[in-house]
Amino acid sequence: MPHAPLKNDLLLRALLRKPTPRTPLWMMRQAGRYLPEYRATRAKAGSFLNLCMNPELACEVTLQPLDRYPLDAAILFSDILTIPHAMNVGLEFEAGEGPKIARPVRTPADIDRLPVPDPEGELRYVMDAVRLIRRELNGRVPLIGFAGSPWTVGTYMVEGGGTKNFSHIKGMLYGAPDQMHRLLDVITRATTAYLNAQIAAGAQAVMVFDTWGGVLAPQEYREFSLAYMARIVEGLTKETEEGRVPVILFTKGGGAWLEDMVQAGADALGVDWTTDLADARLAVRDRVALQGNLDPSVLYAPPEAIRAQVARVLESYGRGHGHVFNLGHGIHPDVNPEHAGAMIAAVHELSPQYHA
Amino acid sequence: MPHAPLKNDLLLRALLRKPTPRTPLWMMRQAGRYLPEYRATRAKAGSFLNLCMNPELACEVTLQPLDRYPLDAAILFSDILTIPHAMNVGLEFEAGEGPKIARPVRTPADIDRLPVPDPEGELRYVMDAVRLIRRELNGRVPLIGFAGSPWTVGTYMVEGGGTKNFSHIKGMLYGAPDQMHRLLDVITRATTAYLNAQIAAGAQAVMVFDTWGGVLAPQEYREFSLAYMARIVEGLTKETEEGRVPVILFTKGGGAWLEDMVQAGADALGVDWTTDLADARLAVRDRVALQGNLDPSVLYAPPEAIRAQVARVLESYGRGHGHVFNLGHGIHPDVNPEHAGAMIAAVHELSPQYHA
Repeated sequence: MPHAPLKNDLLLRALLRKPTPRTPLWMMRQAGRYLPEYRATRAKAGSFLNLCMNPELACEVTLQPLDRYPLDAAILFSDILTIPHAMNVGLEFEAGEGPKIARPVRTPADIDRLPVPDPEGELRYVMDAVRLIRRELNGRVPLIGFAGSPWTVGTYMVEGGGTKNFSHIKGMLYGAPDQMHRLLDVITRATTAYLNAQIAAGAQAVMVFDTWGGVLAPQEYREFSLAYMARIVEGLTKETEEGRVPVILFTKGGGAWLEDMVQAGADALGVDWTTDLADARLAVRDRVALQGNLDPSVLYAPPEAIRAQVARVLESYGRGHGHVFNLGHGIHPDVNPEHAGAMIAAVHELSPQYHA
Repeated sequence: MPHAPLKNDLLLRALLRKPTPRTPLWMMRQAGRYLPEYRATRAKAGSFLNLCMNPELACEVTLQPLDRYPLDAAILFSDILTIPHAMNVGLEFEAGEGPKIARPVRTPADIDRLPVPDPEGELRYVMDAVRLIRRELNGRVPLIGFAGSPWTVGTYMVEGGGTKNFSHIKGMLYGAPDQMHRLLDVITRATTAYLNAQIAAGAQAVMVFDTWGGVLAPQEYREFSLAYMARIVEGLTKETEEGRVPVILFTKGGGAWLEDMVQAGADALGVDWTTDLADARLAVRDRVALQGNLDPSVLYAPPEAIRAQVARVLESYGRGHGHVFNLGHGIHPDVNPEHAGAMIAAVHELSPQYHA
């Protein structure tokens, strides 16, 4: 069955640096805990993992922010750890504790044991969610698919969960770099297949989240994170019968490395709030679109202050196309939903002048 | 009583970009939990705060790493939260939990209530520790005094402890910037007096730690962190009868802002491991010395890998003076002390060639 034609293609146009009448926007983690309707659905699901693995509920939470706000994209509700989960490392989400991996990957034998999951097998629940969301969206806005970067996913797999000092993975990176590369290679192959399956199922753009690339020294970033994201970009199906599928790369804390990131071949780069978009634009010289970059903590301030900061972000990108407005990181769970609404209204109101 | 003449002045020379036969080094948090002798003294003290407030024990742990390793500086054992402690906000360190502040500073009335502590009054225990350490050092190496940056200390005071999202302080910064400035002003006055008292008591160099400056957007960094560090530098006694007292500023995550930081008037800038020292040196154009920047997680790797990474840091700074070797952040508590020794030996062995 063919997909419904897209009624709002602002996001896809901006990601490909084509003209749009205003700056499109979405929010990282827009389907999330700051929304009471999300918390209700999650309570119904029982656990975070159940919510990810149930296509109907994943679809429900994906659409919730679109019913509340005039956003220009939906993003698949899922988690970057679906791949390790399918690799049988024993993933669990403990309440308030973040992810825990029962069998961390630390030896060559641990790495040899890792399968490349079949995206339409163990990960079929993700593809079913993509198909269902596309049907339910019915062309309202495009759907973004996503995955974690191999370095970021590898960090969780080696550390066994969140970490502050990165002791195990950096011990491996500096002490056994060949082993580190073998692990990143298998995650890269799994991730490429996974994102291609999301595209086949209907994702109209894809984003790779490199949450932990910014903890690396510059040379290690290029060798252990960026190089693998570049391999993913190279392996993606970038054209479908619906058209071009733009690819977005985002390294949190990677503002100094945007020039290197351009070489990875993505259409757009995410930028966090610690880099001025004017500087970022100079660095990438309009070879890619930029996505970002309001400090998510601006949403703790009152609406009039939020509006002033939105104005500043729009001004820092300046005139011309190729900007997708977003937060510089995921929306915080304790933000007032009305404050998110104030930000969105400000983008609608203030951005057209930059596209005239 | 005059101080003993300095037997090893490599640190002071390097901070002032004068010639040295090799690259001097010390480690942030060198007196810390990775050392069994530190853990023994801390157990004797009963609590972290007792250890800070007892000049004899603070002196003991300050000297411990110097008895174990050939380091080129001692750094006062203390904490960046001594100032809020003396401002009566109710500081406590809960075991394994980090600092907690019983009365966070969130309203204009809270700010009005804050005293500027007398460094030789409520904070006399710090000055007594400086005096005792100088006497016990007997000229072996110079003693570095320190304080937190106003933005960093303010973060703890407003948040009431550590934080992930900076919700309260960013709510204040974006929503009530005048109030934010008033708080930073009082902390700045207190910190300037505190560092001047450390210098009067015998500190031969001082460092300002801006642990949280890197969570700010560039414009906010300049306005709410760097401007106040610049005021501190301006207010310091930089010459004593012993000679020039170099000032080091360190913003973790501030690698993109080194050019701005040069304007603050310090003698040296700390650099974390996410910036290549070659790039940092280009940015500062030899107007200041640079301190850093080995990834502290390199010390999780075996000694031969540590040596290779030390070589790379030395090579990235390159030939010439004005480099103080250090980690890019504090040494991790779970590092093997022999690995720190391997790093130090490598600096002694490999650095002379860059000074020939």
